[in-house]
Amino acid sequence: MTEARHIVIVGGGFAGLWAARALAKAPVRITLLDRGNHHLFQPLLYQVATAGLSAPNIAAPLRHILRRQKNVTVLLGEVANLSPDEKRVLLGDGRTLDYDHLLLASGATHAYFGHDEWAPHAPGLKTLDDALEIRHRILTAFERAEAEDDEAKRAAWLTFAIVGGGPTGVELAGTLAEIARHTLHGEFRRADPRKARVLLLEAGPRVLSSFPESLSAKARSQLETLGVEIRTGVPVAQIDSEGVQLGDVRIAARTVLWAAGVAASPLARDLGVPLDRAGRVIVMPDLSVPGHPQIFVAGDLASIQHEGKPVPGVAPAAKQMGRHVARAIRARLQDRATPPFRYRDFGNLATIGRMAAVVDVHGLRLSGLLAWWFWLAAHVFFLIGFRNRMVVLIDWAQAYWSYQRSARIILGKDRAQ
Amino acid sequence: MTEARHIVIVGGGFAGLWAARALAKAPVRITLLDRGNHHLFQPLLYQVATAGLSAPNIAAPLRHILRRQKNVTVLLGEVANLSPDEKRVLLGDGRTLDYDHLLLASGATHAYFGHDEWAPHAPGLKTLDDALEIRHRILTAFERAEAEDDEAKRAAWLTFAIVGGGPTGVELAGTLAEIARHTLHGEFRRADPRKARVLLLEAGPRVLSSFPESLSAKARSQLETLGVEIRTGVPVAQIDSEGVQLGDVRIAARTVLWAAGVAASPLARDLGVPLDRAGRVIVMPDLSVPGHPQIFVAGDLASIQHEGKPVPGVAPAAKQMGRHVARAIRARLQDRATPPFRYRDFGNLATIGRMAAVVDVHGLRLSGLLAWWFWLAAHVFFLIGFRNRMVVLIDWAQAYWSYQRSARIILGKDRAQ
Repeated sequence: MTEARHIVIVGGGFAGLWAARALAKAPVRITLLDRGNHHLFQPLLYQVATAGLSAPNIAAPLRHILRRQKNVTVLLGEVANLSPDEKRVLLGDGRTLDYDHLLLASGATHAYFGHDEWAPHAPGLKTLDDALEIRHRILTAFERAEAEDDEAKRAAWLTFAIVGGGPTGVELAGTLAEIARHTLHGEFRRADPRKARVLLLEAGPRVLSSFPESLSAKARSQLETLGVEIRTGVPVAQIDSEGVQLGDVRIAARTVLWAAGVAASPLARDLGVPLDRAGRVIVMPDLSVPGHPQIFVAGDLASIQHEGKPVPGVAPAAKQMGRHVARAIRARLQDRATPPFRYRDFGNLATIGRMAAVVDVHGLRLSGLLAWWFWLAAHVFFLIGFRNRMVVLIDWAQAYWSYQRSARIILGKDRAQ
Repeated sequence: MTEARHIVIVGGGFAGLWAARALAKAPVRITLLDRGNHHLFQPLLYQVATAGLSAPNIAAPLRHILRRQKNVTVLLGEVANLSPDEKRVLLGDGRTLDYDHLLLASGATHAYFGHDEWAPHAPGLKTLDDALEIRHRILTAFERAEAEDDEAKRAAWLTFAIVGGGPTGVELAGTLAEIARHTLHGEFRRADPRKARVLLLEAGPRVLSSFPESLSAKARSQLETLGVEIRTGVPVAQIDSEGVQLGDVRIAARTVLWAAGVAASPLARDLGVPLDRAGRVIVMPDLSVPGHPQIFVAGDLASIQHEGKPVPGVAPAAKQMGRHVARAIRARLQDRATPPFRYRDFGNLATIGRMAAVVDVHGLRLSGLLAWWFWLAAHVFFLIGFRNRMVVLIDWAQAYWSYQRSARIILGKDRAQ
């Protein structure tokens, strides 16, 4: 019997975790490396950022998920460097991992289009720490407004600008409008949260541009009903601690959130292969890296077309890619040819706010309450763990009836602002 | 009609919040000042520190609790200075509050008996931020043990020393032993969490010294059954990043938690009146401050005897004091004499761990499973908010059956260690 091949998986998100699980019965030794100790249900991250759910509700420890799969070792650590020629991963603390096959699934982070100086003024939303930072800023802004005597300064604390009209920007804007109009109503004595302005700034011509135009228009009118002001067609020129410059217009906003751009994990550069504009690895049809057949890329880090369209950076695509890489590795172990990746498109959902969403599934187009129920059922169903599903349902039921949000806690007095 | 008197309450804990609520119908204007935005259910803080509950489960926004009580304004801020003679409170941001009556209920913090240099190595447990810091250290210690090749260093990462054998120390030790023996079992490949050592260090002769000796002995044997090593009678001589010095014995422990000493909030010193050894204000029988009849002190900051025994620093005493101060203020407004505070002692409960607790209620002494059910019912009943009770019950039921803990998430990579 030969020694089991060593598979190193970088990243415990949807792609990495689904690949590890799909290799449960393969005669391999797997090391799953992640910077955090948990798998994150990223589609509900905006709920943590807006105090609707607490952080542990949408995360589960990777060790616990994989405890019964004895061919996996979970390792907490950060990759410092990849050496594809030596088939070696160097970790930040100096340890090294030698692999037979490598899966890079370290995902994406937010990008500021060459304006990294905007980062401290406009946090993005990719990790639980990001979400807690945003929650902190939102809750603190209302407190600062209440403490402020000057009318103009108070208005700036009550103005929230969200940059980027994709799904994350729309979710944040819709939820913030609900918080201002309903959740906080009657709880302040000087500032009136209903006077808060929520602006959604999109450089392109419409919000939710990955949806058909008719649903973009529905989303726009649902957002406006919730009280969101939408500005399309003008890119953001400047962001600082006091607000946003939009073309010739200056918007005084003490809270700016970034939902505009993503860039692939910088690890991709270590491979020395062509990347796309967003820094993602342009992979072969079987998701391997050109010139490095023992390395695969999956999830948000992979750039691939299917039927002439780019595969989108969404959870179902990442899971499918992860499972495909497991199949490809098994084929390699048996010296079979690796099949090409085929993306199965289940459709496109986006939630907007209270009882508002849009759904585009195989030509079926829904908006409003029905779409919202559809979105809700899908998201609760895919959450990992019975307990998380129960608690999220309770939190949502309570939020629905009372407009209250369960995690309105300001933590960490040393945080920025 | 004269203008309503202004009551300033410093601190939204049990004393401050219960005083504010008891003044709901009084013809006064109340400002409730707190450093955080939430009321904290401190008796369950150790559950957040040990990843059993998430932070928002045991906290509720003060604004939300008091939203319908229109004579209260909640203010987020920190007191810089008290000027009793000018009847004025100076806030950290330069604002001032002039009062007719002041209630100081800013509680206690942990104290290191003149060894403040121990603080970074042995965090205490008073706030949600403290609890999240302790959770971070506990979860990270097991990860560091798993990554460590050296046997002795790994053992040091798997050694947890808790200083102080009062209720908090006992709760932390019992829960940590359960985590090591059950929760994490089978999830690590190199380190064996069952080899973890949990030491409870108490300088006095016995743990839970506020209970009768028979219950202390019961607690000790229940802790030992759970796997906790108890050392009594020797004070800690030194704490650093590598461990603890206990008399002549050096204990290599990378995680040290402080549950030994509390000191009153330093605000007490601004009053210029005699304080007790722990820095608490020695109050008059009606809880007012000697020489300053318009200032009251309640909760952990107040030092008072009742029937020859000091009133303990527990939640029921703080609530009773808060309500008493409300009564005293109403009496002052009507020029009536203020009644003396009478403490109604409901008894003493302490939880130890899984199915283990001790109860001493009016001579009724329980230990073990029955005491544990008693403790559990009392604590769920007193939690604020229907949703919190539901979610805490679900988390506990799941923890009971599966030994799992719902908040095992490592957050904040910039935290210490």
